[in-house]
Amino acid sequence: MSQDTKPLIAAIEAGGTKFVCAIGTGPDDLRDITRIATTTPDETLAEVCRWLSVAKSKHGAFQAIGVGSFGPVDVNPDSETYGYITTTPKPGWQYVDIVNMLKSRYHVPIAFDTDVNAAVLGEYLWGAGQGIDPLVYITVGTGVGGGVLIHGQLLHGLLHPEIGHVMVPPPTNSQAIQAICHCPFHKSCVEGYISGAALAVRWGVRADTLPDDHPAWEEVADTMAHLLANITLTLCPKRIILGGGVMEQPNILPLVRGKFAQVLNGYLRVPEIIRELDHYICAPGLQGRSGILGALALGGYALQGRKW
Amino acid sequence: MSQDTKPLIAAIEAGGTKFVCAIGTGPDDLRDITRIATTTPDETLAEVCRWLSVAKSKHGAFQAIGVGSFGPVDVNPDSETYGYITTTPKPGWQYVDIVNMLKSRYHVPIAFDTDVNAAVLGEYLWGAGQGIDPLVYITVGTGVGGGVLIHGQLLHGLLHPEIGHVMVPPPTNSQAIQAICHCPFHKSCVEGYISGAALAVRWGVRADTLPDDHPAWEEVADTMAHLLANITLTLCPKRIILGGGVMEQPNILPLVRGKFAQVLNGYLRVPEIIRELDHYICAPGLQGRSGILGALALGGYALQGRKW
Repeated sequence: MSQDTKPLIAAIEAGGTKFVCAIGTGPDDLRDITRIATTTPDETLAEVCRWLSVAKSKHGAFQAIGVGSFGPVDVNPDSETYGYITTTPKPGWQYVDIVNMLKSRYHVPIAFDTDVNAAVLGEYLWGAGQGIDPLVYITVGTGVGGGVLIHGQLLHGLLHPEIGHVMVPPPTNSQAIQAICHCPFHKSCVEGYISGAALAVRWGVRADTLPDDHPAWEEVADTMAHLLANITLTLCPKRIILGGGVMEQPNILPLVRGKFAQVLNGYLRVPEIIRELDHYICAPGLQGRSGILGALALGGYALQGRKW
Repeated sequence: MSQDTKPLIAAIEAGGTKFVCAIGTGPDDLRDITRIATTTPDETLAEVCRWLSVAKSKHGAFQAIGVGSFGPVDVNPDSETYGYITTTPKPGWQYVDIVNMLKSRYHVPIAFDTDVNAAVLGEYLWGAGQGIDPLVYITVGTGVGGGVLIHGQLLHGLLHPEIGHVMVPPPTNSQAIQAICHCPFHKSCVEGYISGAALAVRWGVRADTLPDDHPAWEEVADTMAHLLANITLTLCPKRIILGGGVMEQPNILPLVRGKFAQVLNGYLRVPEIIRELDHYICAPGLQGRSGILGALALGGYALQGRKW
């Protein structure tokens, strides 16, 4: 099928800091893309709709919308609050209805999922996890989250993966165990230990200004290693992709891989872990576009009436 | 279909202490069942084959065999060691070939999976998790393990779930953190803290002789709560079934539920957790037969050429 005959899809990656919006038919045909600061729901969503309407008049009518959103979100189509951002700690954004708002304006099929489920789908289709199933994508930025694809479908269930809140042993070099988990809910979860926000509180500077030899990185690697061990032991992915600002530190991936091998300590004797750890734990392939491209793919699925 | 026309299946639940073998067409038509002590592979497997052959002459030719085995096992059909028990710590049982041995004798389709994947399938079809997807079954006995059903299929992947080795924070009332994880591989995994074997080493008596008010049960509940939180945050099951001897202690399920709610601390606002925790975390429905009935179901799948 040539690009001209592929359906035009609108995509929204709804983040806590910014919304990314795009229109196109696929990764090689993104016709327009923009970033909109996340302020209040009214202001931000009005800006998103303004951009979508302009994009429509410039590029033609899009036939579906795919949304990947920060969460927690309600992804259960049978629920009264389907398509809502639900219990987010982000001020003003609790129980904001995304899907019905878009549906009432654009009258096209809409797919809705978490930003990280969108990202794992993007990487599965076009990035560093092409055709790899099960596949996990984890982002460590301001917060920590993860998306999961198993048996060809994104994982939902009781809710959706909330990988940032997985409980792990405290970093081994910590003297003050309880003090360093900054999650308002939990005493020893990954997000509370090593999200960008937690690192900033713990070390008093922005995470991206911590020098490469700062002891913070050992703790980040230790916590990530325990998280990835737990992911491996439960979800059995064939690859884990690590994105987000904190994972862009130049030495962090080798550090995480080394600690991961230490933590598992030879328990899982599979070649992917023994000999191919650089492939098993790797960086995203889509240069910051995993989420928005995954949202575009989701829009395509909604148009086809395909389950995701 | 009447029972007479349903195919006759042989089932084997291969455990570290005993093998259970059965023949029948389903849960209401188990024609024969036996237990064989697990000694050496040669002795135990010869005894299993002797029993199967007698069962065949008594009840007729079985048309497939389903096996649920202790592990780790190789469940990758493309692997050279498919159908083997692999790196088990059980003396003498490393790299024992189960499937080829059975195939060479009985020339029928054979399904092979972990004992706990068989158990989750049994509970999904006929027990406490009927039709519930995703579904998780965890056993806490001599060891700790878990099976997972997602999108209608048992979970494999890099290997298969190894839920017993999930890493958790040390129990909160412990003074000697490192000392109490008895796993030979890991410093802070569930099996090392609270398997029957670990409890026996830690407290100097068999777990089933610990009085109901012994402090051990608080630690078991604390560790299980963190495990179940991690399972909930990663695999998103709609129900978690807890089996195995250690989970038969009369007060343990309410203790685990209470600690689980404390550990999550209101983070996941879903009715299943807020109001229906007795259903979300529950006992098996098949009275010790989850594994053998799941193995029977697996044999039926193999006969139909159905993926599991």
